[in-house]
Amino acid sequence: MKIEHIGIAVKDLGISNDLFEKLLGKSPYKEEVVDTEGVRTSFFEIGESKIELVGSEKKDSAIEKFLEKNREGIHHIAFGVENLEVEIERLKNEGFIFINETPKLGADNKRIVFLHPKTTNGVLIELCEDVK
Amino acid sequence: MKIEHIGIAVKDLGISNDLFEKLLGKSPYKEEVVDTEGVRTSFFEIGESKIELVGSEKKDSAIEKFLEKNREGIHHIAFGVENLEVEIERLKNEGFIFINETPKLGADNKRIVFLHPKTTNGVLIELCEDVK
Repeated sequence: MKIEHIGIAVKDLGISNDLFEKLLGKSPYKEEVVDTEGVRTSFFEIGESKIELVGSEKKDSAIEKFLEKNREGIHHIAFGVENLEVEIERLKNEGFIFINETPKLGADNKRIVFLHPKTTNGVLIELCEDVK
Repeated sequence: MKIEHIGIAVKDLGISNDLFEKLLGKSPYKEEVVDTEGVRTSFFEIGESKIELVGSEKKDSAIEKFLEKNREGIHHIAFGVENLEVEIERLKNEGFIFINETPKLGADNKRIVFLHPKTTNGVLIELCEDVK
């Protein structure tokens, strides 16, 4: 397991791309629209992990709703795992609750599920596995 | 630069240690009181990074104030850098504002500074360097 990425909710992806380019001293290596989530994302490499900036691309997307209730800021942590189904089973047995138990396709060629923050100290946690 | 750790603000370190032990499938490798910050911390290794749980140990600590205003959850991201003074200078020249520009001693044998969230998309960012 590793920290695959930290997702940061932003209002304006262009402005935040510039900001994180200055902060991290490098450009995003890609920008990607995730239709299923109604978001536009950009990715910065940092060591073995990534920073994922997430802006809303569609009305009523999860990020738009998040930004209505919260300020811009950290939205989720994603843990990269080797075998998503094994981890889901392990965590279900430990009593964790999932937002979606059936993996869906996320950004950056990943299969993803989300744990519900109510069982994880208020932290929205994504588990992801590379699509083989 | 790498993600050195993600700091998570918690109300009860014992309860959250148990929770993250189940989540990550491993025990914290250490617990440490940071007197200068009035906090008690615990650390879990995850790849090249760490999860740092931070609970208040003293009345009016920054974490106590954070938990009065916010729910438990992600408090900061720490980027590990090779040369703290060089990074501070670089980021000052880029227009970033620091909470403290003079490094102070943090948990886990680190010299640390914090960037002000108002210049970093609402994200509290720590820069840290191993004490040599």
